[in-house]
Amino acid sequence: MKPSLPKGTRDFLPHEVRRRNYIFDTIRTYFHRYGYQPIETPVMENLSTLTGKYGEEGDRLLFKVLNNGDFLSKAKEQDLAAKDSTAVLSQISKRGLRYDLTVPFARYVVMHQNDLAFPFKRYAIAPVWRADRPQKGRYNEFYQCDADVVGSDSLLYEAELTQLLDEVFTKLGLGVVIRLNHRGILAGLAELAGHADRLGDITVAVDKLDKIGMEGVERELLDRGIDATAVATIKQFLHTDDLEEVAPLLANSAVGQRGVTELREVLSSVGPLVNRVVFDVTLARGLDYYTGCIFEVTVDPELHPAIRMGSIAGGGRYADLMGIFGGRDLPGVGISFGAERIYDVLEELEGFPEDASQSLEYLVVCLDEESLRHGFDLVGDMRKAGRNTDLYPSAAKLGKMMKYADQRAAPKVIIIGSREAQSGEYSVKTMRSGEQETVARASLVRPVSATE
Amino acid sequence: MKPSLPKGTRDFLPHEVRRRNYIFDTIRTYFHRYGYQPIETPVMENLSTLTGKYGEEGDRLLFKVLNNGDFLSKAKEQDLAAKDSTAVLSQISKRGLRYDLTVPFARYVVMHQNDLAFPFKRYAIAPVWRADRPQKGRYNEFYQCDADVVGSDSLLYEAELTQLLDEVFTKLGLGVVIRLNHRGILAGLAELAGHADRLGDITVAVDKLDKIGMEGVERELLDRGIDATAVATIKQFLHTDDLEEVAPLLANSAVGQRGVTELREVLSSVGPLVNRVVFDVTLARGLDYYTGCIFEVTVDPELHPAIRMGSIAGGGRYADLMGIFGGRDLPGVGISFGAERIYDVLEELEGFPEDASQSLEYLVVCLDEESLRHGFDLVGDMRKAGRNTDLYPSAAKLGKMMKYADQRAAPKVIIIGSREAQSGEYSVKTMRSGEQETVARASLVRPVSATE
Repeated sequence: MKPSLPKGTRDFLPHEVRRRNYIFDTIRTYFHRYGYQPIETPVMENLSTLTGKYGEEGDRLLFKVLNNGDFLSKAKEQDLAAKDSTAVLSQISKRGLRYDLTVPFARYVVMHQNDLAFPFKRYAIAPVWRADRPQKGRYNEFYQCDADVVGSDSLLYEAELTQLLDEVFTKLGLGVVIRLNHRGILAGLAELAGHADRLGDITVAVDKLDKIGMEGVERELLDRGIDATAVATIKQFLHTDDLEEVAPLLANSAVGQRGVTELREVLSSVGPLVNRVVFDVTLARGLDYYTGCIFEVTVDPELHPAIRMGSIAGGGRYADLMGIFGGRDLPGVGISFGAERIYDVLEELEGFPEDASQSLEYLVVCLDEESLRHGFDLVGDMRKAGRNTDLYPSAAKLGKMMKYADQRAAPKVIIIGSREAQSGEYSVKTMRSGEQETVARASLVRPVSATE
Repeated sequence: MKPSLPKGTRDFLPHEVRRRNYIFDTIRTYFHRYGYQPIETPVMENLSTLTGKYGEEGDRLLFKVLNNGDFLSKAKEQDLAAKDSTAVLSQISKRGLRYDLTVPFARYVVMHQNDLAFPFKRYAIAPVWRADRPQKGRYNEFYQCDADVVGSDSLLYEAELTQLLDEVFTKLGLGVVIRLNHRGILAGLAELAGHADRLGDITVAVDKLDKIGMEGVERELLDRGIDATAVATIKQFLHTDDLEEVAPLLANSAVGQRGVTELREVLSSVGPLVNRVVFDVTLARGLDYYTGCIFEVTVDPELHPAIRMGSIAGGGRYADLMGIFGGRDLPGVGISFGAERIYDVLEELEGFPEDASQSLEYLVVCLDEESLRHGFDLVGDMRKAGRNTDLYPSAAKLGKMMKYADQRAAPKVIIIGSREAQSGEYSVKTMRSGEQETVARASLVRPVSATE
C-alpha cells in the first residue's frame, strides 16, 4: 500500500517548519509586545456554532465530522432513500472543523465572559479548515494568526494595531503599504449616491476593485440595480485618495462624518512609522460584521516590484460580533496575518534569514568506536551545559558524516579521533566559512549562562 | 442561542494556555537540545492511512470526516436501506482525524524518505483525537509530545532518550522513576514458560499488573489458556527487580540474552542522572510494535507521596514501524510525554512557576485624558524598545484600573497623572511586593538589548 495525503493538505519538512515558525514566532513576539494573550479553542466545534455564520458558501465549505458509533441509526429512512444529503447531514453529524478563528473567539467570549478581564486582548495562531477546491497557494488546512481586543471602543486600539502591523512587517524585512478606510465612509458614500439601503451591494462591488477593475465595479453595481447616476457618483468618489477631499463630500452624512473623524484620530495617533499608512477609499473588505475602521496590508510595489500578491494582513472594527451568540454588546477590533501568503512572499524574495529558527548548534562526529564513547560523553556534557548538540551515532567514514552534517545544516561540527579523545582538545569546524579552530573541552561544557 | 462545546473538548483561558505552554516549551527546549527536529503533518489523514493500525477498538475511536458536497450520491441504496453504518462509512467518508503522532510519522518517513537524512530525528507536539467516552483527565482532543529517531539501531539513542527524560522532569521539578525493560526479556520469559508463541498474550496480561495486581494477572493468564505451571514461572519471574538475577534465568534464550545485553549497555551508557533509573521486569507496554528496550516514567512515590497517577511518559524501540506502509526496514526508538497528565500533576503539586510563560511586563494606567495621550506615546516607545507593555485604554478610576492590572497579572504597573506626564518621571509599582519606585522615562524607552 502506497501512502498518500488528503488533497489540499501538506506535510512539512524540518526546514519548512523552521521557516514557518520564524514567521509565527515573529508575529507572536509582537502580539506579546502589545499585550495580547494566548487563548486556545478546540479544532472541533459544534455545527450549531459554525453553521450560518459564513453565508451559504461557507456552510458548504465546512468540514463535517461524522457522529461516532452506529451513526445511521438515527437517520430517517425516507431521507436516506431519497439520498437527501442536506437532510441527512444534520442527522449523522453534529460537529465540524473550525472555519476561522473569529467565530470560535466570539463563542469563547460569550461562554467565558465572567472569567475575562475587559478590554480582553487575545491572540491565536492556529490552523483552520475549508473544503475549497485546492489550488496553488490555497489549502484545505492552513494557519491563521489573529489578534483582537473586545470590550472597548477606544480608537487607540486601531492606532496600536497599525503600529503592530508596521513593526511585524519591518521585522520580517517586508516593505508594505498599510491601507485604512472606514465603513462609515462607505455608508456615507451610499447615502451620497442616494442608496443608503444598498450599502451591502456597494461594499461587495467595491471590494472587487482589485480583481475586476473600475469598469468591472461599474458593471457589477449596475447589475445589482444601482442606477447610472449613482454609479457615476460612486466612481468619482472612488478616485479620491485624500481623506480631506472626501470629508466635504460627506458633510451631510452623519455616519460619513463619523468615519472621517475617527480615521483622522487614528491617523494622528499612530505617530511615525517605518511603512506608509494611506487612506484608501476603495478598501471595502467583504466581511459584513465590520462597522468601523478597516485595515488591509499589501506588499509595497515600489519596494518589491516583482511581487504579485493580494493582501497579506487585514482586519477591522466590529460593533457586535458576540451578538451572534446572544452575548452582550461588546465592540472590538482585530487583525489577521495571512501567514501562508507571507511565507510565499518571503520565499520569492529569499527573505528568510539563513538560520531561521535553526536550533542545532553542534554536531559531533567520531572516527572510531573508542572515540564514539568519548563523543557520547562530550555530547551529554555539552547538552547539560545548555548547548543544542547532536552526535552521529556510529564511527563512519568522515565523508559520510560530513554529508550528514550538511543535510542537518549543522552550524558547527566537532571531529573526534583518538588524538582528540586523548587530549580533550577538539577541532571545531564552522560549516558556512569552512574555518577550523581548536577548542578545549572545558569551554564546550561550561554552562551557557556562565559564558554569556 | 446558547453556545456550547463538543463533549470531551476544552477551551483554555490565557493563564491555562501559559501553563500548558510552560510544559510544551520545556519539552521542546530539550528536544532541540538533543537534536530533534520539528516536523508537521496534517490533522486530517486519509482513512486508508489510519484504519487497521490501532486494532478494532482504535478503528472505532477514529473521528471520521464526511466527504464534501452531495456525499450520499455515491452511497449504495441497499446499504442505506439496511442502515448499515459500517458499509456506508467507506462510501461517504475518506478522511479522518489523526489518532496519534506515530502512524502519521511512519507515513511521513515512507513518503519523504528521499528528502530525509538518516538517522532522522524528529519531534512533534500536536493534538490528536480519539472518540473515547470523555471522563476526568480523558479528552477527545488532547496533545501528544513525541520524539523519535529512525534509521539507526544504535543503543546510544536509548541512553540519550533516558537522559532527555531525566533532564525534562528535573527542569519541571518533578521527581520521577524511569523504568526500563526489554521486549527480548519478555520474549525470553515466554520461552522460559514454554509458551514462546504466546508472547502477545503474556505481554497484554503483564501490562495490566498496575491496574489489576498480581492475582489479576494470574487470572488473566489462565483465562488466556496459559497453563498453571507456566503461570507460576511467570509469577516468580515478575518478582525479580535485578537485571543480574534475571540474566541467568534466561541463559538458554537467545532473545532473552539479547535483551539482557542491550539493557546492560543502555544502563551503563546513561551516566549519572538526577532521577532513579530502574530495571522493571513487569513493564510490558501494550503497543505491539515495540521490539527492543521499553521505557516508562512514573512520579517517584517517595518524593511525591500524594500523587496518584499512572505513567507520565513512555516509549520504546521498534524494528519496523515503516513496514505498515511498505517502507524499507528502518529501526527506530521514540518517547512520548503525557503532557495532559504532567499538567494535572504540576497543578496538584502547585509546581508551576508563578510567572509561567507570562509575557506581559508593564501595564500603564492614566488618571486623566491628557495623561492618556502621554501614556499611549510612552507605551509605543516602550514597545519599540522591546518591553512587553500594555495600556489601559481610557482614564478610569484608579481602583478599577488596578483591578484590571491584577486580572491581567501584570508584574509592574506605571501610573500616570498630570504631574508624571509633565515630569517624565513615573511611579512604577511592583505588584507582587507592592513596592513603588520612581523611574525616568529615558530608562523605560532605552532598548532592552542595550541595557542587558
